[in-house]
Amino acid sequence: MDPRIREQAEVVVDHSTKIEQGDNVIIKAQPAAEDLVIAISELCGERGAVTSTAMQSERARRAYMCAIDEEDIALNEMFLAEVEQADVFISIRGQENMTESSDIPPAKNQKQSAENKPLQKEYLEKRWNATQFPTPSGAQKAEMSTAAYEDFVWSAVNKDWDAVKEHQQQLVDILEDADEVRIKSGDTTDVTMSIAGNIVKNDYGEHNMPGGEVFTAPVHETVEGEVLFDKPVMAQGREVNGARLVFEGGTVVEHSAEKNEEVLTALLDTDEGSRYLGELGIGMNRDIDRFTYNMLFDEKMGDTVHMAIGMAYEDTVGEENERNDSAVHTDMIVDMSEDSFIEVDGEVVQRNGTFVFEDGFGE
Amino acid sequence: MDPRIREQAEVVVDHSTKIEQGDNVIIKAQPAAEDLVIAISELCGERGAVTSTAMQSERARRAYMCAIDEEDIALNEMFLAEVEQADVFISIRGQENMTESSDIPPAKNQKQSAENKPLQKEYLEKRWNATQFPTPSGAQKAEMSTAAYEDFVWSAVNKDWDAVKEHQQQLVDILEDADEVRIKSGDTTDVTMSIAGNIVKNDYGEHNMPGGEVFTAPVHETVEGEVLFDKPVMAQGREVNGARLVFEGGTVVEHSAEKNEEVLTALLDTDEGSRYLGELGIGMNRDIDRFTYNMLFDEKMGDTVHMAIGMAYEDTVGEENERNDSAVHTDMIVDMSEDSFIEVDGEVVQRNGTFVFEDGFGE
Repeated sequence: MDPRIREQAEVVVDHSTKIEQGDNVIIKAQPAAEDLVIAISELCGERGAVTSTAMQSERARRAYMCAIDEEDIALNEMFLAEVEQADVFISIRGQENMTESSDIPPAKNQKQSAENKPLQKEYLEKRWNATQFPTPSGAQKAEMSTAAYEDFVWSAVNKDWDAVKEHQQQLVDILEDADEVRIKSGDTTDVTMSIAGNIVKNDYGEHNMPGGEVFTAPVHETVEGEVLFDKPVMAQGREVNGARLVFEGGTVVEHSAEKNEEVLTALLDTDEGSRYLGELGIGMNRDIDRFTYNMLFDEKMGDTVHMAIGMAYEDTVGEENERNDSAVHTDMIVDMSEDSFIEVDGEVVQRNGTFVFEDGFGE
Repeated sequence: MDPRIREQAEVVVDHSTKIEQGDNVIIKAQPAAEDLVIAISELCGERGAVTSTAMQSERARRAYMCAIDEEDIALNEMFLAEVEQADVFISIRGQENMTESSDIPPAKNQKQSAENKPLQKEYLEKRWNATQFPTPSGAQKAEMSTAAYEDFVWSAVNKDWDAVKEHQQQLVDILEDADEVRIKSGDTTDVTMSIAGNIVKNDYGEHNMPGGEVFTAPVHETVEGEVLFDKPVMAQGREVNGARLVFEGGTVVEHSAEKNEEVLTALLDTDEGSRYLGELGIGMNRDIDRFTYNMLFDEKMGDTVHMAIGMAYEDTVGEENERNDSAVHTDMIVDMSEDSFIEVDGEVVQRNGTFVFEDGFGE
């Protein structure tokens, strides 16, 4: 077995979920990720925890979902009961075919997600972690060789996360008591927003592995200006390129895209909340140095910021502020590596990807 | 997908477990059996049932069991809670490597089985079925090519089980009110036993797929005579050949074997009940025409009888009779195809494998 799989298992078991003797641990995965399941199971054995391996075949789910009548789709009470008994829930992504569910009627998928909301609610109350196993299909999605994709995934995951936490905390400290944030990149992006009273989160790999971002929610009516998103925006399984949004009073008053603009339009028209921003995130994981069509990685890319239109996470909105709600939460990424800066209350805190607390700032 | 996999799925879903709309169905399997999981999932979707796929990696279990301290091995309360919610429990055998758990310390396996007894008790209260997916490793164990093993498995499984039920019922009717059964084969096997008051079961593929035997429990003190078992006896993972037992007053007073006699001795010395017979079974599935080192198939082989030393199943022992109990239940097979007969209360009911109710009897 590749020793980097064991390293990833250690990161997930010891850093992310802190598994101890007597813990009940569910390991959810596709068969393609069996090697990581093996490595995590071995560590759980060493720690004296009890494991329950729930490998779920996406091919079987596809066959089931295509065969069942929409009205018969119901909550999986069996798996819910299993999750209720767990202390730790580890969800491993990575399958044989990333488009396995592409011919399931969308309405059926929506019905199933809706019916299984109690399941999601339940595992979010555990010590949960979502991580990625590098499969050939994931490499294909990322337009990389399998070997290069393995290097990419494991260098983003296998690192000293306590050091990452400390490093990122410097940005959290800057933003914590801040009011106005300005994002400027080239001539195409210049947007300001208030984050006053909202909560700044340090993602150091507890729930997402890889982690590596600092994020909060904008006070949603305060967003002003325009943004050109440099990376593809994925929506409804399609790729929107060159998306451009103009904000006034927090809402999108003008939009365009070089490719699939109608998808962007549909996204913005989803509901009332889908024209407001729900998240401002700053990617700080520099081992994620390319876009791989996988938001678990993309949103943490070094030298980028991302803004999500739609729903704001409850744990990022302060008591004084109203939370923007929406059925959608779509992250959109701006490259900050060149001719760019982030300003906080009038002070530049990042220039061309380098933070004020890092060597080379302002050189 | 091989159409015979879909046929097997239909047999399990419609004949064995009678899955209907709203049923909660657990499908337990190893990844090597994914195709059958897919076929069963599709049918469950058509029936409007809810499925929970629990694919469990034997490689992960081996890694876990080798790593954990024996005292930390505990009941899997998570999976127990899942099974409690189920109406149907389908367990698919078939893995990549039949000896995957060969280096788990036996004491740890025993501890885990003991701890998980409530789990076994729970699924036996469901509509449960154990079936087999033909894998290359199963073919290797059977000393067959994969293609020939597939033919073997699917011809034993994919048949009209209602017709089988009716056909086997003729033997059940003969044995139901019988007293003495005599098994005679060549000069080496001549044994008699009473089955008076015990319950005769017709295995037509409800809990085992393939099914295909009629079985009951002998009144254990009544077994008299000698038996030479023509097929290998598997015990402690080893193969005993040419096993011979001599019974007096129901107990084994003399035994020998051509190979691994000491294994047979250890087996008989397990406990007080391990020198008595716990089962008499008559194999009637003629599509099982060879020994494949898999008791799910071997005990149903056509033109054979099997006797198990040790524990008698509760549902085969009448209220008037005492049940033989033991930690072991080891099936041993006698070939009845030549120079053999089964006599019930002095009447021959099978000669050279042909039953009195079949064409060609006595020819």
